[in-house]
Amino acid sequence: MKDTTIPKATAKRLPLYYRYLKFLFDSGKKKVSSTELSEAVKVDSATIRRDFSYFGELGKRGYGYDVESLMTFFAKTLNEDRLTNVALVGVGNLGHALLNYRFHQSDSIRISAAFDVKPDIVGRILDGVPIYDANDMVEQIRAQHIDVAILTVPPAHAQENADRLVEAGIKGIMNFTPIRINVPKDVQIQNVDLTNEMQTLIYFLSNYKED
Amino acid sequence: MKDTTIPKATAKRLPLYYRYLKFLFDSGKKKVSSTELSEAVKVDSATIRRDFSYFGELGKRGYGYDVESLMTFFAKTLNEDRLTNVALVGVGNLGHALLNYRFHQSDSIRISAAFDVKPDIVGRILDGVPIYDANDMVEQIRAQHIDVAILTVPPAHAQENADRLVEAGIKGIMNFTPIRINVPKDVQIQNVDLTNEMQTLIYFLSNYKED
Repeated sequence: MKDTTIPKATAKRLPLYYRYLKFLFDSGKKKVSSTELSEAVKVDSATIRRDFSYFGELGKRGYGYDVESLMTFFAKTLNEDRLTNVALVGVGNLGHALLNYRFHQSDSIRISAAFDVKPDIVGRILDGVPIYDANDMVEQIRAQHIDVAILTVPPAHAQENADRLVEAGIKGIMNFTPIRINVPKDVQIQNVDLTNEMQTLIYFLSNYKED
Repeated sequence: MKDTTIPKATAKRLPLYYRYLKFLFDSGKKKVSSTELSEAVKVDSATIRRDFSYFGELGKRGYGYDVESLMTFFAKTLNEDRLTNVALVGVGNLGHALLNYRFHQSDSIRISAAFDVKPDIVGRILDGVPIYDANDMVEQIRAQHIDVAILTVPPAHAQENADRLVEAGIKGIMNFTPIRINVPKDVQIQNVDLTNEMQTLIYFLSNYKED
């Protein structure tokens, strides 16, 4: 890893900050204090100040932050100012729901191609997204210069499809399968394991009771 | 918080360990080393040993862990040995996909009631799950003794529905909306924000390049 001093935990909070700043900006607000920000995004204000400190002087203590300049800064940091095209592999129930998913009004993320093997949907356009044959994955992803993919295939097909995505030049995979896929070091994986999340929640219910 | 010494990060890895142990058990394996476990779940073996140490003596170093007893132990810890009924609120695209979601062969998690406001689906059974009128939420959840809910409503309705769930006695909410909902301290929230996950992934692509 190079050229960075920002911890992963900080990076994960940036979209949260950004979305709230955008909301404030859209409602015409000019200034926001770290306390207000803290209450809205449910991150303690010491953490917010530390997170912001990685990006240099973003505001003066006691005067609050300037909403517009902070929003613009985070937009650039998050690449919100340019479009990221995303491929989706596996148009089952969850995959299909994600084709419809609007990524919360983010107009910078767009699923531009989907892949499947089912003859009844290949070659069609579903919810505005063309469904290509999985055999054309490498060719299409290269042609469309896509470097991020969502993987929503059945577990048994997770690794083979990840391999194809890597072959096509994909650099980031949002993995909805329960499989921990193997990829080269320069490919980032974001695992979204809904069973894990649910089991963890249930575990916390039984084991982290407050009195 | 009381009666616990297990860090949240450890708790989040338990479902991962459990699933792999179940896989090994189903394939007839008797023993597993922390190195094998480490490679399969992609968690370094020092972390695995530290995680396991919170649960006392689970295996002898150098001899590996007994697959069956470890699996049984984690099953109990994760309440996998009893059924958890879950309510789903908001049967839109994502909510509907989750009705179909099999929580990866976990037969201990079951969506047993769903709620919506749309007249064309209320009163019907979709994918085996009855869809009740949102106005009957408090009554049904109490009657069915449900204490975990999945929230997949539009953002503008997130807080009001969370309030109803709390009123109904829900103790854990898996929140798929981008809203950071307010709940009493004894209610656990697990936020699953897909836009956040995607933005974080895209951020990492641009900022964490290896050379």
